[in-house]
Amino acid sequence: MNEPTDTRVAYDGEQFRVVVERWNGRDREIVKHPGSTAVVAIHDGSVVLVRQTREPARRQLIELPAGKVDDGEDALDAAKRELEEEVGLRGGRWRSLGTYFTSPGFLDEQMHLFLAEDLERGEQDLDDGEDVQIVRWPVDDVEQRLDELEDVKTVAALLLFLRAR
Amino acid sequence: MNEPTDTRVAYDGEQFRVVVERWNGRDREIVKHPGSTAVVAIHDGSVVLVRQTREPARRQLIELPAGKVDDGEDALDAAKRELEEEVGLRGGRWRSLGTYFTSPGFLDEQMHLFLAEDLERGEQDLDDGEDVQIVRWPVDDVEQRLDELEDVKTVAALLLFLRAR
Repeated sequence: MNEPTDTRVAYDGEQFRVVVERWNGRDREIVKHPGSTAVVAIHDGSVVLVRQTREPARRQLIELPAGKVDDGEDALDAAKRELEEEVGLRGGRWRSLGTYFTSPGFLDEQMHLFLAEDLERGEQDLDDGEDVQIVRWPVDDVEQRLDELEDVKTVAALLLFLRAR
Repeated sequence: MNEPTDTRVAYDGEQFRVVVERWNGRDREIVKHPGSTAVVAIHDGSVVLVRQTREPARRQLIELPAGKVDDGEDALDAAKRELEEEVGLRGGRWRSLGTYFTSPGFLDEQMHLFLAEDLERGEQDLDDGEDVQIVRWPVDDVEQRLDELEDVKTVAALLLFLRAR
């Protein structure tokens, strides 16, 4: 695919940038994001989820453990780092559940989904001010609890996991 | 949930805005978006999808017919409008497949997913410059073609559809 004929940075933030790109004589506003990871983490027969306040959503959401890929970081390394920091699980067997654009009409973020099984306890290490509550759903209950989810990566990844079982 | 103690508009665009909100003494950058709809549209035994160039993704993607909710518009009305404009299908029986945040760490966009069956032919009416190719997947082929998808709403909605069949 071609590149835009012109690019202007309209907002340069901490978490993302906004650029206005010129394509075929039209301006396209695009949010540029370094990409994210999320993990279907299985420990002791349960999927380990997190409940946290999401200010953009104005509510608490139940989600997979997830985080941003650091600049230059490999997605799998990022997912492993984030899983240990956020819920204190490490090791285990990992495989990809696919990589997906989260909202490709105006956002370049790619979400790398993983399944991690046979995890061991590590050291939880939350960022200052991070308010994360760990939620465990027995694997056999996941199917009937999907209605509690309001986060698209979490429902997609859990359905991909259930399909692959 | 509370509201932020301060809000500053950092970028005011055509498709979305960026605000910096102050929560508990911390700044949060949030992309504000009016919300979107996407439809699992069944016609003549096939799911009707669209292939289009997505500049943010730097490639063509296969996606559900989808669009933005206009200011003050009902989500179901928006989905019906968009489905007829984009692929020329109307009428039929509609139901919700749920509403999901697409990337709730920094984006307030909610994606309203619908299933529409028994659709009839209407009038396709693409926006000027919209380059949309219609793709039909027989319903029985969807399961084995999921690997062709790189868009999270499309994979989530098709898995929800297959689960509900």
